[in-house]
Formats: sequence, C-alpha cells, structure tokens
Amino acid sequence: MEFKYLKKTPLYKAFSELGKRIFVPEGIFYYSNRAKKEAEINGTIGTAYGFEKDFIDGGSNEWIPCYLDGIKNYIGNAHVKDFVPYAPIGGVQDTRELWKEWIIKKSLFDENTSKEQVARLRKYITLPIITSGVTNGIYIACALFLNPNEYIIAPNRRWENYDTIIEKYLGARIKSFEFFKENKINLKALKEVIEEVAQLQNKIVIILNFPNNPTGYIPTVEEVNDIVTLLKEMYYVTKKPMIIIVDDAYEPYVYEENVLDKSLFYDLHNLDEDIIPIKLDGITKELLLYGARIGFFTIGLKPNWIKNDSELDGLKSEILNKLEGMNRSIISNCNMFFQNVTLKIFKEQGIDKIIAARNKVKEILKLRYKKINSEFNKIENPDISVDPNSGGFFIFVNLNPNKIKATEFADHLLKKYKVGIIPFQNLEDKVNGIRIAYCSIDIKQIPEFVSRIKQGLNDFS
Amino acid sequence: MEFKYLKKTPLYKAFSELGKRIFVPEGIFYYSNRAKKEAEINGTIGTAYGFEKDFIDGGSNEWIPCYLDGIKNYIGNAHVKDFVPYAPIGGVQDTRELWKEWIIKKSLFDENTSKEQVARLRKYITLPIITSGVTNGIYIACALFLNPNEYIIAPNRRWENYDTIIEKYLGARIKSFEFFKENKINLKALKEVIEEVAQLQNKIVIILNFPNNPTGYIPTVEEVNDIVTLLKEMYYVTKKPMIIIVDDAYEPYVYEENVLDKSLFYDLHNLDEDIIPIKLDGITKELLLYGARIGFFTIGLKPNWIKNDSELDGLKSEILNKLEGMNRSIISNCNMFFQNVTLKIFKEQGIDKIIAARNKVKEILKLRYKKINSEFNKIENPDISVDPNSGGFFIFVNLNPNKIKATEFADHLLKKYKVGIIPFQNLEDKVNGIRIAYCSIDIKQIPEFVSRIKQGLNDFS
Repeated sequence: MEFKYLKKTPLYKAFSELGKRIFVPEGIFYYSNRAKKEAEINGTIGTAYGFEKDFIDGGSNEWIPCYLDGIKNYIGNAHVKDFVPYAPIGGVQDTRELWKEWIIKKSLFDENTSKEQVARLRKYITLPIITSGVTNGIYIACALFLNPNEYIIAPNRRWENYDTIIEKYLGARIKSFEFFKENKINLKALKEVIEEVAQLQNKIVIILNFPNNPTGYIPTVEEVNDIVTLLKEMYYVTKKPMIIIVDDAYEPYVYEENVLDKSLFYDLHNLDEDIIPIKLDGITKELLLYGARIGFFTIGLKPNWIKNDSELDGLKSEILNKLEGMNRSIISNCNMFFQNVTLKIFKEQGIDKIIAARNKVKEILKLRYKKINSEFNKIENPDISVDPNSGGFFIFVNLNPNKIKATEFADHLLKKYKVGIIPFQNLEDKVNGIRIAYCSIDIKQIPEFVSRIKQGLNDFS
Repeated sequence: MEFKYLKKTPLYKAFSELGKRIFVPEGIFYYSNRAKKEAEINGTIGTAYGFEKDFIDGGSNEWIPCYLDGIKNYIGNAHVKDFVPYAPIGGVQDTRELWKEWIIKKSLFDENTSKEQVARLRKYITLPIITSGVTNGIYIACALFLNPNEYIIAPNRRWENYDTIIEKYLGARIKSFEFFKENKINLKALKEVIEEVAQLQNKIVIILNFPNNPTGYIPTVEEVNDIVTLLKEMYYVTKKPMIIIVDDAYEPYVYEENVLDKSLFYDLHNLDEDIIPIKLDGITKELLLYGARIGFFTIGLKPNWIKNDSELDGLKSEILNKLEGMNRSIISNCNMFFQNVTLKIFKEQGIDKIIAARNKVKEILKLRYKKINSEFNKIENPDISVDPNSGGFFIFVNLNPNKIKATEFADHLLKKYKVGIIPFQNLEDKVNGIRIAYCSIDIKQIPEFVSRIKQGLNDFS
C-alpha cells in the first residue's frame, strides 16, 4: 500500500517510526479474498472444514469448520461459525458497523448535539477496529504515535498501567501535569506541559480519561469549554498536530448533572483544527463484560484533509490497513465469540433494554458514590481531601504527605483495621493518596469502611 | 523487582532492551492481593459487584460481579464468575496448571520419553502464561529477544506473518535460510546462517515450526537428531545463548510414522547447553477453536542456571513478572470465558475423549493429505516439485521461476480454472510456489482441483 492520502495528513506526520512502517501486506488476503468470490474450488482457507456428519456422530451434511464433539456444551446456542473460525483482522464487519452507529447514538445523549454534528460523525469517523479490550486500544494508540523517549501528556492522577505501557513497555515518557487546582482541572498546568512538549517534538500527544481512574473526576460543562478552548489556543500557538487519546473505559458511569455527559471525543471531532481525537471504548464496562476483551478504536478525521468522497474512502482504507497491521502483528485478531455476542445483544435486546439493564447497575453505583462522598464530607481533618468526582468506579483521597505516606497508610489500614485500598504515592509528581473502589463495596458497609479510615487517620495525627 | 536470579541467566543476556526493561510494578497487585487475604472490607477491586437481586429481577442474594440482564442467554451454562470478570494477567491459575500437565502428557506420545525427562519437564519448565492466541505468543517471544535491526533465523518457507511481526512491526530482521535440499532439511544452510548471525550479535534466535506452514514439513527422526546435533555443535562454536522459538501451532497434525511425533521443544529442553526452547502452543488448532484466542507461552529452563529449589522458584517468579509485564502492557489479560472453557473440556470430557474427537478430524485431514500428495505424484512435469510434507494443513508446490511466476500463476488459475491458492513469490529468497490449504478442500474435489492446476501448468509450458 502506498498510503498516498494518509501521507498528506497531520495524522501521518504524528506517527511513530512503527506507525509509519507498519502495514498488512496484501498478498495472502488479496488472493484469499479473490478466491472467495472467483473460485469454484478454494485452497486458500487455513481452517479445517468438513461435512459435519464426517466428524460428529449424528452430524448434518453441512460443510462447516471442523469442531470437537462436546465443545458445544460450553457455548450456549451460538452457531459453530460464530465461535470456531478466526474473526477478520479488524473485527467482524457487522459488529464494527453496529459500534459505529452506537458511537453516533451515544453523541445524542447530549441534547445539544446537532444534526450537523451527527452527519459529520457518520461521514468522518473511521469504522472502529476491534481491539483486545480497551488496554489493547491504549497500547496501539501509544505505539502508533510514540517513539522511544518521546512524550505523551497525562494528568498526575492516572491509571497506573499507562506508566507500564508507555514508559516500561514502549520506552517513551510521560509528561505529567498536576490534575487539579482548587477542585477544578488545572488548565494552567496543562498549558505549561503542552508548551514544554511542543519545544521537544513535532507533535502533541495527550491522553485523557473521563470519568477518570483513579479519581472519578468528570469536567463540568464549563470546564469542557475551557479545555477545548485551551487546546485550540495551543494548537495555533504550537502549530503541531495534536493527538488526543480519549480513554472512554468508564463512559456511561456519570452520576451528576452539569458535567460532561458524553465522551470528550465528540467536541474534539467537531473542531476543524488538527486536534485529532481517538476514541477508545469497549464492552468491558459498557456491557459489564470485563473478561471478554472487546474494545474499539475509532479516529475522528478532519474534513479538510481530503478533497472529495473518493479520497475520504481511500484515506479510510489506508488507516484501516495500518490498524490491521497492528492487530495482525500483536494478536492476529480478537476473539470471535464476544464480537458476535456484542452483535446479538444489540440486535436482539436492543439499545433501550441494554441501557435499562445497565441503569440498574448504574443506580447501585450512584447510591454508593453519594454515600461515600457524604461520609467523607463529614470528616473534618485538614490532612485529607477528596478529589473532585462525579462518576466512574473510584474516588481518590489525598493525604498530607508531611504526615502520612500513602503506602504506610495502606499497610496500617490493612493491619489494624482490615480495610483494603490502593495507595498511590509519587511525591515528586505530587501524588500521595488512596484510591477507593466503591464499585465493589456494599453500600451498607460504606459508613463502617469510612469510619475505619477516619480512625486510621487519627493514628497519624 | 530486582530480577536477581534472572540476571544471572543466559536468558536475560539474550533479552532485548524491552525484555530487560519490562516488568509489572507490584504496587496495585501487592495491595489488592493482600486485601483479598487480610481485609474485612475490600476497596481495591475495580469491578462492579452487587447482590444479584439488586440488579436482576428474581436474582439471588449472591454477591457477584454485576452483569447485564439478558447476557446469560448468549453464554450457555457458564457461571457469571467464569466470563464477566477479568482473568488474571498471566491467565487463570487452574488453566495454566492444566496446560502444564498437558505439555508433560504430550511428551509421552513419544514412547522413548524417559521418566527422567518427564521429571525434568515437571520441574524445569515454567508454568505457561496465557497469550491471546499463538500469534500473540510469537509476538511476545520476538519482542522479548529482538531489538530493532537484530536478526532472527527462519526458514525461507515460513508463515508470512513472521515477516509482518518481525520486520514491519518490530523493525528487526529475518535471516532466511533455504529450508530444503534434496527433500531434506538443509542443515548446511542453517549452519551458515547461524555462523553469520553469531558474528553480528550476542545471541542466536531461531524460529521453527513443525508441522510447518506453508509446507507441511516435519523432520524425520533422523533429521531431528541431526538438527539437535547441529545446534549443540553451533552452541559450542559460537558460545552464545540460543533461543529456539518453537511454534507448535499445528502440533497434533502428524500423518506419518518415523517423523517427529511431539514438539521439538522436548528434545531441546533435555539439553544441558544454553539452547533455550520456548514452546508456543494453544487451543487454536489443538482444540479447533481458532477464534477463541487462547495460546500458551512456556520456557524450558536449564538446571545449571540455579543452585537449589528456592532459587528455581525465585527465577520462575521473576520470569512470570516479565511475561506478565508483556501481557499487562499490550492486552491486560486474555479472555476469561475460553480459559474456563479449556479447563472444563479437559476436566469434564477428559484427554482421551478430546483426542478421540480430534482424531476424527485428523483422519479426515490425513486422507486428504494422502490424496493430494498422490495426485501431485502422478504429474510428470519437471517444472514443479512438492516440498516434503507429512503433517499440518498445507502443501507447498514449487514452480520453476524461469517459466512460471507464482503470482501470475495464481491469477491465471483463478481466472481460467476458478481455483484458489496462495502464491508465495520471493525470488531473491528462492521462494516461488503455491500453498494449498487441503484442510478446507473436500477430498472428492481434490482430483479435479489438482487436474485444473495441471492444466494451468501446461498453459505455461
């Protein structure tokens, strides 16, 4: 593939060496695709096929992928074709198309989304490729843009696995900014790191995650406007492509009004500047199927990159080939079964039923969210503060580093009060606190849980 | 982690920069593991839990991972805990232990395997980690050992995705050797590339795959002895650690006597020299579940690397942490459902029943194998030759490059004879032929299939 359209875009300019290098050679797939259409006898398929009766007692005359007698006991009603064969490299076509429509539908949860925005989404976002969970999407996004020693910007409160992926795996670097100031996002700090990184490399890459792990923070509508304004301003100052990796793992879990009630992806996609959003979402938490490992990777393209529909199609094919090259190299493809389960849930149950079922879980989490915040609000202790939060699975409680080190506190809580939390301690990066996963604590236990933490705090005062 | 035992091994010396750098930070897992044991109230689990009755109409009082009402329709009889939560990073413990026993069991398919060899396997191979299919295992193995521009040795007939993973993705290089001479493995060519690579870097990395894709080649018992003897000889000549990546994707599909009837892994593991085998296998073809994406990554450690059992345990923990670091960064973990399906099939159906069910498929493939070879044997045409083959899913037919280019031939076959095959054409690397996937061709069609190829050949004579 020549990548003649892609090479003209700022997306390509921002690619890492790997991103520039990777592609799926068309050889085998070119011939196997042609054979599917043109051949009477096809000797290209590397999956054992046979007549069912020849390998299953009492089997049919159907020519299907050979499977082990007995396996169906474990799979429910799925047809052999839905779980035995390989999925396509980029994912099952119908599931990808379904998820694209789902992404469009999710934009409409905000009533301010206009028809023009919807039309722009439908036309200019890529057809999602399927990744092995959201982590795999984060990894692919980072590998696609970051060379060793290049920087990605992330808040100082972030999922700890970002550090493993970016620094330990890729050998790239995180430029951390202090996430909050006076209970609001610290845009001054974000601005400063963008300026700093712009001095060092030819692109700005930022990863953001709302609702945030570990804090539960979601920007207010006002803050969203400020973030978008800042990014635009910085785009004109730096004149470098900005890649915004939008980690939407916790997307639906928003418990307050007047905060961002859809992914930040949408507002960024709507910008004409080369502020290029990548949406990473998945069934992991949206359908509460953590173990299924099905995520989606979607890029928001800009209308001004291409001249006409034919160029747009060409560009999309080229991007697909790059992303398929990532999948093909790392994992070949994602598991077939849950791609089809995803499709069936949406087709058979429908969106309303899915959302209603999920809202039952969301309401449980929302009550715990309110409870744990109100319990912490009762504590009058100048050595702690809870980070702003209005969604997700966690809250984050900061500890005064001069009095209480987070890891010591975690150890103390476990030993003396039999309470488990995760300490985050990186004093240089101004992080010293504990993450509490209220998503897995019974609401009736929350007062006791917080009470024990309060007692633990008193031991350090 | 300090990796104090691992750093003393030749395995570590052979690691890439990534291999040396990667690890899973113990922070979160240290505290969440402690909390599981020590906490009365656990706020470390990032998965939503609740009482089933609170989110499912008619649900129980059980405290379980929250799931969507309706999802169970698609999963069969699996318990929520078997498909909703994340699997551990390295895989479900019981499935890993099962697969280790399965690897030991597979060594016994060769009656010459001694009790001492079995004891050595049980003690010195690592507990397999679970990878997202065999491809993911190949990727991890290559990334663990190959820096950009370093060489891995592979035969000139190889799965085309090796090139994508190694050259296009990792930016490393393949040193190719001519696989066959006079219908036997070309050990002289293998020896020469080992000598060549030994001049260039501090380790020898080789990837081998029997039964081979695309040829179906399996070494004879005699050839296996010659391969092992050569590797030992070259080890003493080069004095560099040798990593042998054993791609066992097609392991069970052996159709002849007097050829290697178990993985090459076992003979290499039995050597005391630092010829370090890595076994990559999976349920993909062993259980005919291509789409499930469950593979296993197992390293054969050497007794002389450690002084006692305590050091051995320490070394295994350190290796596990490295491999978990790879999983954690790329995919977090593999899908839970098929890890549990694997466990259940083995526990409930038992090995004998699995093998009996699979043998039905194997017998079908074996008949096709015999048929397609006998049909090609009838063709008297000096411009073609079939590579030696005795197993797997494919055969490979070489074409005289002076008369017939493989890609032209593929196009011609499709257009004129409606026959689909995959051309492999790399004249510099002495490859010009077609791969035929008889695994998916009805035996009754094979004579017609070969007859059309014969006619196609005549068009070029």
